[in-house]
Amino acid sequence: MTSVAQQSVTPAAGGVQFPRVLIIGAGFGGLYAARVFRDTLTQVTVVDRSNHHTFQPLLYQVATAVLAPSDIAAPIRWLLRKQPNTEVLMGEVERVDPDRRVAILDNGTELPYDYLILAAGARHSYFAHPEWEAVAPGLKSIDDAIEIRRRFLKAFEDAERESDPAAREALLTFVIIGGGPTGVELAGMLPTIARHTLRGDFRRIDTASARVILLEGGPRILPTFPEDLAAHAERDLRELGVDVRTRSMVTSVEPNAVCVGDERIVARTVLWAAGNTASPLGRLLGPSVPVDRAGRVIVNSDLSVPDRPEIFVVGDLAVMSTDGKPVPGVAQGAIQSGRAAARNVLHSIRGEGRADFRYWNKGDMATIGRYKAIGDFGHGIHVAGHPAWWFWLFLHILYLAGFRNRLSVLIEWGYAFFRYGLGARLITRNR
Amino acid sequence: MTSVAQQSVTPAAGGVQFPRVLIIGAGFGGLYAARVFRDTLTQVTVVDRSNHHTFQPLLYQVATAVLAPSDIAAPIRWLLRKQPNTEVLMGEVERVDPDRRVAILDNGTELPYDYLILAAGARHSYFAHPEWEAVAPGLKSIDDAIEIRRRFLKAFEDAERESDPAAREALLTFVIIGGGPTGVELAGMLPTIARHTLRGDFRRIDTASARVILLEGGPRILPTFPEDLAAHAERDLRELGVDVRTRSMVTSVEPNAVCVGDERIVARTVLWAAGNTASPLGRLLGPSVPVDRAGRVIVNSDLSVPDRPEIFVVGDLAVMSTDGKPVPGVAQGAIQSGRAAARNVLHSIRGEGRADFRYWNKGDMATIGRYKAIGDFGHGIHVAGHPAWWFWLFLHILYLAGFRNRLSVLIEWGYAFFRYGLGARLITRNR
Repeated sequence: MTSVAQQSVTPAAGGVQFPRVLIIGAGFGGLYAARVFRDTLTQVTVVDRSNHHTFQPLLYQVATAVLAPSDIAAPIRWLLRKQPNTEVLMGEVERVDPDRRVAILDNGTELPYDYLILAAGARHSYFAHPEWEAVAPGLKSIDDAIEIRRRFLKAFEDAERESDPAAREALLTFVIIGGGPTGVELAGMLPTIARHTLRGDFRRIDTASARVILLEGGPRILPTFPEDLAAHAERDLRELGVDVRTRSMVTSVEPNAVCVGDERIVARTVLWAAGNTASPLGRLLGPSVPVDRAGRVIVNSDLSVPDRPEIFVVGDLAVMSTDGKPVPGVAQGAIQSGRAAARNVLHSIRGEGRADFRYWNKGDMATIGRYKAIGDFGHGIHVAGHPAWWFWLFLHILYLAGFRNRLSVLIEWGYAFFRYGLGARLITRNR
Repeated sequence: MTSVAQQSVTPAAGGVQFPRVLIIGAGFGGLYAARVFRDTLTQVTVVDRSNHHTFQPLLYQVATAVLAPSDIAAPIRWLLRKQPNTEVLMGEVERVDPDRRVAILDNGTELPYDYLILAAGARHSYFAHPEWEAVAPGLKSIDDAIEIRRRFLKAFEDAERESDPAAREALLTFVIIGGGPTGVELAGMLPTIARHTLRGDFRRIDTASARVILLEGGPRILPTFPEDLAAHAERDLRELGVDVRTRSMVTSVEPNAVCVGDERIVARTVLWAAGNTASPLGRLLGPSVPVDRAGRVIVNSDLSVPDRPEIFVVGDLAVMSTDGKPVPGVAQGAIQSGRAAARNVLHSIRGEGRADFRYWNKGDMATIGRYKAIGDFGHGIHVAGHPAWWFWLFLHILYLAGFRNRLSVLIEWGYAFFRYGLGARLITRNR
């Protein structure tokens, strides 16, 4: 099989129309799909509602003021600047018309395609309680992270000037709803920052007295990890002073409290890490395209959708499986499926057969606080504690480097990480 | 004269009450005033509406996506962490009651003082047209800079997806109102970024075709600089392609246009750099305290206000003079007056006489685009062009280093500057 990527390529001459590939979403799935088309005879358009790609696995560090937003995000068009056949548009896709093969933007602009790769991802979901969102923000985008950072830092500022002890305690109580990786990483970082980064800067309050409560509805935290690692993470969290409560279903979220059954936990800062719902674009593909309860599209083995071989769905918006096992909603799942869909587009353009998508599990990690982590690499290879954290750091610098200049990341990000988030501690959009 | 700072100091023992100094505002004036009290027998409270000190001379670089917000801001409490006698509160001061010697915060908290240093600065002013603010944002804070950056970057994004040529031209026209240093620095940087940083990243538009129009009501730009330097700056701006128009009074600012007399300039992005008004706190000090038309307090030669020897006003909120010449509203004016007021507080505490404030003009600079600048160092010492820019860079790294770790600034800021604002190019708070 000859790769188009290895052929010599000339720019589209007047009149010559190369196949048009439209990629919706520039998260991991969309970005890595777009890169496959570098130096191919295609016309690629990438649409995203924001102007930047976000390195999502480190969003929790922006939310906790360890890293600055600019440390983990880069303009999408800059990332794809060396692909002359690829254009980037910032805009919200309102719907896709599969019969006419166009996507329609919020301003009415129509984007025609020959092949569509839908990588629009997921947002956090409040299930039947959309009103909880205003009280308990979730963490999916840079804007989300800036909002959580604002609330987190503002709570300490307000506590410093609060004279009423009960109000002060409420301000210094942080509740995180959801014991998955995001919830665990937020819960582990908050007490670390409170005790180390912030402590010497306050005079009236002891920031180390901040309480962090992690609420998980199920029987244990980190349900997607093996039991021994989850237990290790729970021990590490408790050591950091986190109050980990499993089998704790939240029944109500109010501006100043969270209710779990009969208990009312008074807290001014509540963060949501409990559930996701897929982009609405999946449901809008038409009656022939099946979706699950979360709105994710159930794709064919080649990542296309039933009856529409020119439409592919990848990443968090897709229900995919390998050897009967579901592909997890992590960065690697999006990267690998994005690339696989793009390669199948190229196969079709060249008249070749498509390949089935197979997820290669490179392992899954989560950090607990600043210097501990857990990692599951399959085949019973489990790591935990400090060595796991160093491995996690190494991996993340490596991956971050993939989308920015390698040396610059080592200098800047490494430095930002170890200086304990000085410039990252800004409260912006306060009014 | 022995300085208290040189005495050995022990923390306040139970019952001992040291003189309470309240500093309102943590810009250059307030921050440098606070630092004078390090290791003195005083109790210092610094109040600011935001949690960070901003290095204002570089704000225009955040607004033009050269630097990230975190590069030029640091938490106030972190900057003062090594002064155990100093506490920092984040809050808005609503008014000062000089008779009771308290300042009152927005939440009703009362802050008593023995000495007050008012360093609340200025905001941009729209004179009789407050409705222009929504259309033409000004540049005083990090939040302002983020908003201007959002509009600046968004204009190119919208132009890239716009098919109507007239609408596209309006999106690529940027009008800056006001030919002072801020207006000149914004006007010089916009075409530089459009031509170099952004150009290779767009496919449908030529970002270099962006028009930048600088409108100044008076007969020349940079009226506070000597004529030869202002003329040099104007030439440099024209070389960058900036359309510099003097004697151009703006008569109306609309969402899609700016009117100058009979001419209507169609532009989607309009920035305001035309005027300042002092914080309202100056006017609220009572009938015995004189203010000028901009609301600035006319202070005594020791920087205190008439009939209230315990109240000092410094920085942009004060009308000050040395040898009959007004002290300019620049960083050095705020730094020097802040320090002088603080030293006079210490003199009074020790029963010594106060010193008159004398402004030492260290010179004044402005940059034009990325690699040119002008500088006026008094005594006829004028510099311009590239050498001036290198000198400007050296000075600013030196001063930035004063409030952050020197090595870290050299690495990080220098790097951020030369990489042409990669991570800084984020559009946040888009919804």
